[in-house]
Amino acid sequence: MIPTHIEHIGIAVKDLKSAISFYENLFGIKCYAIEEVADQKVRTAFFKIGATKIELLEPMDADSSVAKFIEKKGEGVHHVAFAVQNLADNLAKVEEKNIQLIDKQPRKGAEGLNIAFLHPKSTGGVLMELCENPNQK
Amino acid sequence: MIPTHIEHIGIAVKDLKSAISFYENLFGIKCYAIEEVADQKVRTAFFKIGATKIELLEPMDADSSVAKFIEKKGEGVHHVAFAVQNLADNLAKVEEKNIQLIDKQPRKGAEGLNIAFLHPKSTGGVLMELCENPNQK
Repeated sequence: MIPTHIEHIGIAVKDLKSAISFYENLFGIKCYAIEEVADQKVRTAFFKIGATKIELLEPMDADSSVAKFIEKKGEGVHHVAFAVQNLADNLAKVEEKNIQLIDKQPRKGAEGLNIAFLHPKSTGGVLMELCENPNQK
Repeated sequence: MIPTHIEHIGIAVKDLKSAISFYENLFGIKCYAIEEVADQKVRTAFFKIGATKIELLEPMDADSSVAKFIEKKGEGVHHVAFAVQNLADNLAKVEEKNIQLIDKQPRKGAEGLNIAFLHPKSTGGVLMELCENPNQK
């Protein structure tokens, strides 16, 4: 499962609007999409830098995992997403390596990708997401 | 200053050897270089995923900023590095935007790159590094 590239870097922010302005101002890049991911109780904003996206994550609910992350660790990098192919097969292989999965099966994430998270307890503290583009299977 | 790509993601680890094994085992990628960066008191190990490197950082000294990071936040993503051109000029522009610089002038980082860090207090909690490849000026 060699990832093709870093699909995105998820960054937890308290206020999406001001975070968007910050990135637009710092890098001169434009936010190209805003999306609510009800499942994860977040509003997301996307930027593209080379092949990788910056995904800003604002919690929509104090009970969401992103809100808890900010409460515990403060704003900052929340997860790193790796673009892979054959996600379902690869999840089974990851589990065989005794790496703890948060999602045992792929589910739908932002931008229509199939995604699954690995537990940071078994990945050296990095919340890792594996992403598969269903249109590039 | 639109970055061309995410140059690398720096990940703080307690034990470089076991972290290298973890990434090699999980992704089937090979560590292509190990380097000591005396200036930052770290030993680094590099992997390549698409255009982006994973840079594992093991503190060489309990007094290093990476050791303090691990003590405070645990292992995990330490910084995100953006590849830019004309680094010195762009640092001046970043400072004009009232973003706090850790390095006011470029200095030498791993792999011979010219680098400078921005302070996470003014970047929404993300320790950002700007990198310039002196051979691609």
